[in-house]
Amino acid sequence: MFNQVTIIGFGLIGSSIARAMIEKKLTNTIVCVDKDQEVCTHVLALGIADDATTDASLGVEGSDLVILCCPVGAMEFVGSRIAGHLQKGAIVTDVGSVKGRVIEMLQPRLPSHAHLVPAHPISGAENTGPDAGFAELFINRWCIVTPLPHTELQALEKVTKLWEAMGSMVEIMESDHHDLVLGLTSHLPHLIAYSVVGTATDLEDDIKSEVIKFSAGGFRDFTRLAASDPTLWRDVFLNNKPAVLEVLQRFTEDLTALQKAIRKGDGEYLYRQFTETRDIRSAIVDAGQAEYLTPLDE
Amino acid sequence: MFNQVTIIGFGLIGSSIARAMIEKKLTNTIVCVDKDQEVCTHVLALGIADDATTDASLGVEGSDLVILCCPVGAMEFVGSRIAGHLQKGAIVTDVGSVKGRVIEMLQPRLPSHAHLVPAHPISGAENTGPDAGFAELFINRWCIVTPLPHTELQALEKVTKLWEAMGSMVEIMESDHHDLVLGLTSHLPHLIAYSVVGTATDLEDDIKSEVIKFSAGGFRDFTRLAASDPTLWRDVFLNNKPAVLEVLQRFTEDLTALQKAIRKGDGEYLYRQFTETRDIRSAIVDAGQAEYLTPLDE
Repeated sequence: MFNQVTIIGFGLIGSSIARAMIEKKLTNTIVCVDKDQEVCTHVLALGIADDATTDASLGVEGSDLVILCCPVGAMEFVGSRIAGHLQKGAIVTDVGSVKGRVIEMLQPRLPSHAHLVPAHPISGAENTGPDAGFAELFINRWCIVTPLPHTELQALEKVTKLWEAMGSMVEIMESDHHDLVLGLTSHLPHLIAYSVVGTATDLEDDIKSEVIKFSAGGFRDFTRLAASDPTLWRDVFLNNKPAVLEVLQRFTEDLTALQKAIRKGDGEYLYRQFTETRDIRSAIVDAGQAEYLTPLDE
Repeated sequence: MFNQVTIIGFGLIGSSIARAMIEKKLTNTIVCVDKDQEVCTHVLALGIADDATTDASLGVEGSDLVILCCPVGAMEFVGSRIAGHLQKGAIVTDVGSVKGRVIEMLQPRLPSHAHLVPAHPISGAENTGPDAGFAELFINRWCIVTPLPHTELQALEKVTKLWEAMGSMVEIMESDHHDLVLGLTSHLPHLIAYSVVGTATDLEDDIKSEVIKFSAGGFRDFTRLAASDPTLWRDVFLNNKPAVLEVLQRFTEDLTALQKAIRKGDGEYLYRQFTETRDIRSAIVDAGQAEYLTPLDE
């Protein structure tokens, strides 16, 4: 499918892409770019790249596809570094959780002969780093691709086919719409999880140890989200500010209404709200998106 | 261990207790009490009770153990119904998610010859009703027992041994302390999950369908909690009001601080907060309480 692919950032996602592309024979050569020399050395030892460098401009030379797997906050810097070194007609794509700001950061920097096709695989795992990656990470997962109005159809098709070849289902969407939908389905839940777990970190030590011991009641689910990569999520919130603040505002209004109902002892309101939310869960189960059907503790 | 046990409320927990007691041969006879005649008939057909009635006062006669598995809001009514019919020296226990209010509701109603030993198994599953129960539900789960100052040691020991026989680890705690710890580890997470999913139910239909489609980003975890039994949770919030409002206040303060940091673009604050929360997750993993290690989507 490709002759030479450069993957910039060999964390969980970058190293999983490398593994999947090798397994599916989607490229002749993989070049690893990572700012950390140790990661470069380790990636070569793992045999998941043919060449490795800490220098992004050097790393993209001669590649027909460049995949940016660095944190969203590093996109601007990396874009500037690689711009003058891209092969004519090279496709540049990314895996950032935010799309509008990434386009704003990359588009003005890239040469006009290169094709920018932003993408966001909705997949991840609890652990990070090149050792945590695995080739099956994207199987049966959605990958949202957000082409620009002037993106060439051929480049869009190549990126779409790449994700499908790695097992994903691809959805085409406008970047602003992506940022609003993901603001609700992903960014808000993570922010809230970080906040709930943060509340627990402020507790006195004896209560904190009990919170850990009896975490099975629901809190445990939040700690999993709140153990996600801090750099990644800092960058998401800094770069999807308007959408996150909007969904946060809606959430706060709804929570305040529940709080008032508890204070007033309004059981009818609580019962009605708690019943409506069941329909959404049923819809997710029906859509085949409910994965975790292991016992839930109350 | 017991001669005759009456279980009042044959939902997930009640029917699981019946199954576990039969499997472990912990009683000669099980009497089912459920307000729903259909449930009574079905329970007998399932073979998980020897006798069944909708009349609680009739159902407790001759039993040396009575387990209240009804919603917290029904405890007062049930307590009044059974009080005059309890066998001398009978042990009365429950499985309510709130302990202080349940004691307030039951203690003044029960005769002085009966022994009240409140308990709360930290376990549950996504589905409800007598068919959803299974004997293994309590294995390796905590059960918190909150005896009163005057509870007889012998009665406490019998309830402790019962839960241990069903596979649980038992922790003794004061009821107020239980309500605060569970307010944070269970009641707050459920309230927030109901609220987040409630926010999604208010969306326009086209966005709502996308939220369902791309729910894997974190939202899905919340929908599982928000699909819990509405009656059970309404009663929890109405009956653990002070503790829930207190932890909710702490949470709101922490969330507001994160919101402010996003608005101001304070990446350092966000990074610091998101790093501290990782320690709690590690502690839960170390404590062997992290069950869901399936891939987490971001």
